[in-house]
Amino acid sequence: MIDVLIIGAGPAGLTAAIYALRAGLSVVLLEAEVYGGQMALTNEIENYPGFKSISGSALSEIMHKQVSSMGGEFVFQRVKSVNLNGNIKIVKTDQKEYHSHAVIIANGLKRRTLGCRGEKEFSGRGVSYCAICDGAFFKGKNVFVVGGGNTAVEDAIYLSNICKEVSLVVRKNYLRAEKYLCSLVEGKNNVKRLMESRLREIKGESIVNSAVIEDKDGNCREILVDGVFIAIGYEPDNEIYKGQVKMNKDMYFVSDEECTTNIPGVFVAGDCRLKPVRQITTATADGAVAGSMAIRYVSELGTKINN
Amino acid sequence: MIDVLIIGAGPAGLTAAIYALRAGLSVVLLEAEVYGGQMALTNEIENYPGFKSISGSALSEIMHKQVSSMGGEFVFQRVKSVNLNGNIKIVKTDQKEYHSHAVIIANGLKRRTLGCRGEKEFSGRGVSYCAICDGAFFKGKNVFVVGGGNTAVEDAIYLSNICKEVSLVVRKNYLRAEKYLCSLVEGKNNVKRLMESRLREIKGESIVNSAVIEDKDGNCREILVDGVFIAIGYEPDNEIYKGQVKMNKDMYFVSDEECTTNIPGVFVAGDCRLKPVRQITTATADGAVAGSMAIRYVSELGTKINN
Repeated sequence: MIDVLIIGAGPAGLTAAIYALRAGLSVVLLEAEVYGGQMALTNEIENYPGFKSISGSALSEIMHKQVSSMGGEFVFQRVKSVNLNGNIKIVKTDQKEYHSHAVIIANGLKRRTLGCRGEKEFSGRGVSYCAICDGAFFKGKNVFVVGGGNTAVEDAIYLSNICKEVSLVVRKNYLRAEKYLCSLVEGKNNVKRLMESRLREIKGESIVNSAVIEDKDGNCREILVDGVFIAIGYEPDNEIYKGQVKMNKDMYFVSDEECTTNIPGVFVAGDCRLKPVRQITTATADGAVAGSMAIRYVSELGTKINN
Repeated sequence: MIDVLIIGAGPAGLTAAIYALRAGLSVVLLEAEVYGGQMALTNEIENYPGFKSISGSALSEIMHKQVSSMGGEFVFQRVKSVNLNGNIKIVKTDQKEYHSHAVIIANGLKRRTLGCRGEKEFSGRGVSYCAICDGAFFKGKNVFVVGGGNTAVEDAIYLSNICKEVSLVVRKNYLRAEKYLCSLVEGKNNVKRLMESRLREIKGESIVNSAVIEDKDGNCREILVDGVFIAIGYEPDNEIYKGQVKMNKDMYFVSDEECTTNIPGVFVAGDCRLKPVRQITTATADGAVAGSMAIRYVSELGTKINN
């Protein structure tokens, strides 16, 4: 029996692990993709206190080592189903069934898809959702970045150093990104902006070679392009918890600052829950809170069992 | 006119500064003591993700550099009075009057000290005020925890999993802590209680090796011990904000996760506000949130001014 099972090894899950391990509890972290989560896919982090500038992969590696050196066990499996209502929490992955006293869900968010024609077809063949992961494949080429928020602008800046030309395809007539990022992207001569524009279709043969853009007047034109980076944000990935853990209509877990849920022994931390600001700092804070609450829950359980 | 005036340069204030500066706002931090706040006074930090182990002063120095390199201005002055209700916030220190659009109060807590002989002398050398911060340094050792409230009992429970023996030194003949915490500590075989006892003196050479306990009859005895955790609490330092910023009867600022207050343009971050867990991670999270909210407030103000 595991004391604390943590689903997701991003900054929230990793921090929860640090707290639970320091309290002498056994901890297993289940991760479906890569430790560090979204953080690991971030090129340069400049707003995590303690590091003036660090790559997301480097910071993820540090936190991963921090947890594993304390005895945290990492398992790379995807959770398929859960049964959380009993005193013993049951979590099934594609390979195994895990039993634990407490569960901390820190599974982050998944990337939002555009839903246009050709997107699915060319995914991995010119269509990408991660500039840092795939940017290098587009050296000297022309790419689109779809979106107007921080991620899109960061991606455009990152890709401008690799690609020949980057076009930001923005639905509104302004960028939603932070001022600082906007000023950075303004300094990039090879970044163009297609404002009030929508990507309607991605075309190609074996790989992408063009995309159809619709302007504000509804006129479409086909533009030759080698790659399309979609950076329109993230959404919850909480389908398997439906009917057990309380969530809102957008599928975010509903929880207060204490990171508790409607189920005793089940805690939520990080981007997966409804909260005002989603950053590495707020994820680690949730990890500390959920970890502390899980420690308290497991100790209380211990007392009950002994009595 | 300063865009964002931050009162307190602990992890909350420093992080708020990072966010506001990245948004292109002007930032002044007022600090009465030392940048880093309580964090700076922590011997060894092992629960801040990104650093397996770092001294509080080193982490404070890194964060301080991070902020000053971005243009944050540090002023070492103590705030004496404020007038926060207008559109222009007025903050007076012992030396100067500051005017700003937004104010973030991140002034932390002040520590309750015992005031016994040796306490100051051995602070950081066996005397600690934070079991979670420093407990791991007393693995297999004997420690005292002074206090009878929630913090003391929580500390005793936490330390019982790490230390050989924990003695709770309690002034009264009962514990003030919540029932469930008391029942938890009862289940711990290696936690002793010294009721109706007062810690009178802490002794040692380079580090703590004994303490003098006075019982209810006034008899003193010296007991060998490796560490003394003083857990008689922290208290808010918010007297000057009374009547302006909403606080509870214990003088903690009342705020939700958004770090907003009853006054537009005034935000609270970190230990000074009512919240479930007070740690460096939760302070930096508040800083990120309060910083983000201040950015939004100042930009909206800008729009209003321009219109």
